[in-house]
Amino acid sequence: MNTFGTVFRVSIFGESHGKWVGVAIDGCPAGMALCEDDLLPDLARRKAGATGTTPRKEDDIPIFVSGIFNNKTTGAPLTIVFENNNTRSGDYDAIKETPRPGHADFVLNKKFNGYNDYRGGGHSSGRLTVALVAAGVVAKKILDSITIDATLIEAGGNKDIEAAIKKAVEDQDSIGGIVACSIRGLPVGVGEPFFNSVESVISHAVFSIPAIKGIEFGSGFAAAGMKGSEHNDAIIDVNGATKTNNAGGINGGISNGNELYFRVAVKPTSSTPQQQNTWNTTTQSVEPFTVKGRHDLCIAIRVPVVLEAVTAIALADLVMSGKAIK
Amino acid sequence: MNTFGTVFRVSIFGESHGKWVGVAIDGCPAGMALCEDDLLPDLARRKAGATGTTPRKEDDIPIFVSGIFNNKTTGAPLTIVFENNNTRSGDYDAIKETPRPGHADFVLNKKFNGYNDYRGGGHSSGRLTVALVAAGVVAKKILDSITIDATLIEAGGNKDIEAAIKKAVEDQDSIGGIVACSIRGLPVGVGEPFFNSVESVISHAVFSIPAIKGIEFGSGFAAAGMKGSEHNDAIIDVNGATKTNNAGGINGGISNGNELYFRVAVKPTSSTPQQQNTWNTTTQSVEPFTVKGRHDLCIAIRVPVVLEAVTAIALADLVMSGKAIK
Amino acid sequence: MNTFGTVFRVSIFGESHGKWVGVAIDGCPAGMALCEDDLLPDLARRKAGATGTTPRKEDDIPIFVSGIFNNKTTGAPLTIVFENNNTRSGDYDAIKETPRPGHADFVLNKKFNGYNDYRGGGHSSGRLTVALVAAGVVAKKILDSITIDATLIEAGGNKDIEAAIKKAVEDQDSIGGIVACSIRGLPVGVGEPFFNSVESVISHAVFSIPAIKGIEFGSGFAAAGMKGSEHNDAIIDVNGATKTNNAGGINGGISNGNELYFRVAVKPTSSTPQQQNTWNTTTQSVEPFTVKGRHDLCIAIRVPVVLEAVTAIALADLVMSGKAIK
Amino acid sequence: MNTFGTVFRVSIFGESHGKWVGVAIDGCPAGMALCEDDLLPDLARRKAGATGTTPRKEDDIPIFVSGIFNNKTTGAPLTIVFENNNTRSGDYDAIKETPRPGHADFVLNKKFNGYNDYRGGGHSSGRLTVALVAAGVVAKKILDSITIDATLIEAGGNKDIEAAIKKAVEDQDSIGGIVACSIRGLPVGVGEPFFNSVESVISHAVFSIPAIKGIEFGSGFAAAGMKGSEHNDAIIDVNGATKTNNAGGINGGISNGNELYFRVAVKPTSSTPQQQNTWNTTTQSVEPFTVKGRHDLCIAIRVPVVLEAVTAIALADLVMSGKAIK
Repeated sequence: MNTFGTVFRVSIFGESHGKWVGVAIDGCPAGMALCEDDLLPDLARRKAGATGTTPRKEDDIPIFVSGIFNNKTTGAPLTIVFENNNTRSGDYDAIKETPRPGHADFVLNKKFNGYNDYRGGGHSSGRLTVALVAAGVVAKKILDSITIDATLIEAGGNKDIEAAIKKAVEDQDSIGGIVACSIRGLPVGVGEPFFNSVESVISHAVFSIPAIKGIEFGSGFAAAGMKGSEHNDAIIDVNGATKTNNAGGINGGISNGNELYFRVAVKPTSSTPQQQNTWNTTTQSVEPFTVKGRHDLCIAIRVPVVLEAVTAIALADLVMSGKAIK
Repeated sequence: MNTFGTVFRVSIFGESHGKWVGVAIDGCPAGMALCEDDLLPDLARRKAGATGTTPRKEDDIPIFVSGIFNNKTTGAPLTIVFENNNTRSGDYDAIKETPRPGHADFVLNKKFNGYNDYRGGGHSSGRLTVALVAAGVVAKKILDSITIDATLIEAGGNKDIEAAIKKAVEDQDSIGGIVACSIRGLPVGVGEPFFNSVESVISHAVFSIPAIKGIEFGSGFAAAGMKGSEHNDAIIDVNGATKTNNAGGINGGISNGNELYFRVAVKPTSSTPQQQNTWNTTTQSVEPFTVKGRHDLCIAIRVPVVLEAVTAIALADLVMSGKAIK
Repeated sequence: MNTFGTVFRVSIFGESHGKWVGVAIDGCPAGMALCEDDLLPDLARRKAGATGTTPRKEDDIPIFVSGIFNNKTTGAPLTIVFENNNTRSGDYDAIKETPRPGHADFVLNKKFNGYNDYRGGGHSSGRLTVALVAAGVVAKKILDSITIDATLIEAGGNKDIEAAIKKAVEDQDSIGGIVACSIRGLPVGVGEPFFNSVESVISHAVFSIPAIKGIEFGSGFAAAGMKGSEHNDAIIDVNGATKTNNAGGINGGISNGNELYFRVAVKPTSSTPQQQNTWNTTTQSVEPFTVKGRHDLCIAIRVPVVLEAVTAIALADLVMSGKAIK
Repeated sequence: MNTFGTVFRVSIFGESHGKWVGVAIDGCPAGMALCEDDLLPDLARRKAGATGTTPRKEDDIPIFVSGIFNNKTTGAPLTIVFENNNTRSGDYDAIKETPRPGHADFVLNKKFNGYNDYRGGGHSSGRLTVALVAAGVVAKKILDSITIDATLIEAGGNKDIEAAIKKAVEDQDSIGGIVACSIRGLPVGVGEPFFNSVESVISHAVFSIPAIKGIEFGSGFAAAGMKGSEHNDAIIDVNGATKTNNAGGINGGISNGNELYFRVAVKPTSSTPQQQNTWNTTTQSVEPFTVKGRHDLCIAIRVPVVLEAVTAIALADLVMSGKAIK
């Protein structure tokens, strides 16, 4: 199933090489100002074009299908689609023969008994993140004064990101990165004990982004090597402000009013220009293989806006669910 | 809300100092052999008693309330409770005055407007993990020949765990750790693209465990520093076996038939014997403070069986959901 | 699955002849006053004892397992159980051989491959309605000043109900009835267009009650024979009050602020003292058969309080869900 | 929220006067043959054109947006849209001043604080049933050899339906009707005790159809006047065939393998040509009023195919959910 959320419910649909990709949002409050221009800044941030990103370019003009009237949300299901105007299906015929390492070609074929649309990864394509970004803009509006900022803080193991990209281009090999995300303005009390902890719901949404392989909140993996007396954040005022923020703004699964902070690990783009080996279904043997098509060398560059989007979607659902039980 | 799952649905209930804690499972298939003895080994692994664990001891005898007849599941909701026979409520009166650093005392009070049962952390207590372990045993039965093994691989930054615990006892300060989890026998095709990726659903369940602050699949955070040509796992046979396993057994959110592998970071137990500072609601100032009560020095020792349990719950739901759409 | 609701979620568990039956409620707001005595009036209304009801009597003392502290809800999952102290398992051994007409014996056996607890109907027993009534009391508290009143308006085709029961006792044959339900104080705007219309959600809950075979809102089936000019309710003031109430207080699936009104049909109790025919699994032929055990002659007498309960559960979920998207 | 189902999940979106209306289906199995032509017969049955139906005509050509590849379902979300090519927005400006009796104009305005798209009923328009019909075709494919047949058996209180329509045209007043639905081939064991009884899930779906005011299964309301010995259906063979079918094919909420049978009451079309009274928000008084626009005199004529569709959607979800727990 491809739906997220309990009261703010987001479903994405479409394929890399279909006519449209889109998002259907159920549970959006009525009366929020929303026009196509509101989506453009985040859509632009996601777009290809920078060094190290794919030359495939899409117009990414949002088309409002439903749920908007006179530039305001109506409270009815909100649907937005994007045309795929830059598809080159011919590039992908080889996928049937040589499942690309690191990609989902092999598992999709098995899972769907060969019926999946394999062109460009089909429904599993990173192209679908345009729909996530659109939903993220809506979610950010719901969160109002709560701000979410994600930044690429490391690429290819290097904190000088420009240098890292330059080297990847020289090496003609893809690289990964680390993206940090900071949320400010979240009130105390968002999240639930156990199954719907803030970490649970955010990580559920975050691992929807292809290429994410790890997440850590606050001091994260470093916490495993710390002592309790070092790690605990002393509460220093009546509002719950803490002296340090090793907890990343969450105690017992619930926001504590301090900055919510987490980092994610992005693996290197699976489509690297380097020659690799994979199983060839025709020759029935391991064969050398080179990826065709147009791809990002460092997909991590494009992750921050998508990470903000899914974080906003997760928090909007938690915040709205919390209102239901007040 | 405190329920996990779409078709295999697990709800936990109870408080640290209430009469019972328990679990209600909806969606358990009929005809599975299940008796109280089946639960004892995992319950024993979770129990206190080892060096570095709390002296609070519970009998942890499972009582089957519903859903079992003639030692088989009936297909009706399955409910199991455990008596709390070792509660010392008096220890916790100070919580109202001095919210414990690292604990949820402060956020629970705010979230529930002071109505939460604060004794021993109430519903947010680690005591509730006994209910998770019970549900985990049921989920493991559903997963049948799929095996899940979690192990503490590091404590207090040290791979010699015995030495780490000894030092924590000497230092009289709590420590954290890293637990690795390996799943074998999972077929290709479990999980969904995007919102219900294997990583999404497992991490959702895993962050239900108090004290977990990070999770990484396969090479995880290390992947961020690797090149694509290093990280990609070459497919080497018709079943999708890969030469390396940097992906941790997952591509595009879907299991690829190789070992599923992830690690989690456990923070140091919040209740450390060391003196700390916190806000005192009576004096309205920061005051030195020492935790009372009986606590684990290294909660990470008790995490593996709970991690296996929530992983089994997550996978049981994914596997069963997958059967629905075949 | 045996859970109802999106934000106010009610799960019931237990069997007719198990140790306890009970209810787990997830999503109950914190701070509502709730003690065992609050449940007693509705539990008493459900109890057996009147002419035409079963001689099986239960104490029906609610035991709060979780979610209550100092006689207030805590916001954590609320669990209530009832002991089954009046079970006579021996009565039911024949069910395996002769599935009772009108009962679920045959279908339960097939559905659960013979693993169901067949004693007294097991999980499908009317005994479980005690758990519904308990949840209904909680839901009524959430609905606050909204009142729900259900009344038996007809039994055995007779509006003189006392006479109808007397005749049933004379005839030694079970009878059905019609129960009307009126809700006052519901604001305009509860319910959603299409899938979560007020009628959809209420009928979903109502058909959970064993023995209900029909529901009609407002003029109901009579509407099918009316003209539009007769049926339409003229709006006569700024608050939406209508001159007539053929709509039963609902337009387009959404409450219109007038009295919400519906009626349900209750079939005759399946367990009639009359001799009947059924398939005998031993002789492999149709055989005459008489129900053993203790049963109601007119189960409809006990339906009103259960109908109020499930209606309250349905409306509490709709009202709370509505708050989430404000 | 406007989504139905647990594993086969259907969301509809769009407005009467928007560009498109459509449906997003999550949980559709891969490999089912599906082309646009498959939808045409049911779409044609729903279409206007017969005597007593609206002169508004739409092309109703389904456009597959996602989830189909080479004329087969892919297992990815399946989205279908329909263009609205026959909208006359000018007709509806008066709605703001005079909420139409029987319609949702008043409640939608209150519920959504005036932000709803009021043109032609907006999202609440019967136009959206084209999306239900499309989803119904998909659901029928999933149900395979299970057949669903709905028929108008009474209109305006008359079993001679042609005569009833003729009279309605003469009277220039709208009429209602009764539609019967019969499902054959459903195996024993579909449905769950209590909250997800077959009646619960079907009625939930059925009351999504605008204008439905009642539903009764098997003997339905007549059962309320019958004796147990009359009403009980004797089981007459090893497969559970019954001599009579007062139960309508359901015992204890679970299908019993006999014909599943229910009837629904359809109210007269709210838009009648007759003059009516309603509250005028400008004059702040009750005023005579005549509906403008193009409307059906007997919407019940168009209900059968929509009733089949929602019944198929409900049963597909129950059948698929049942497979999950086998």
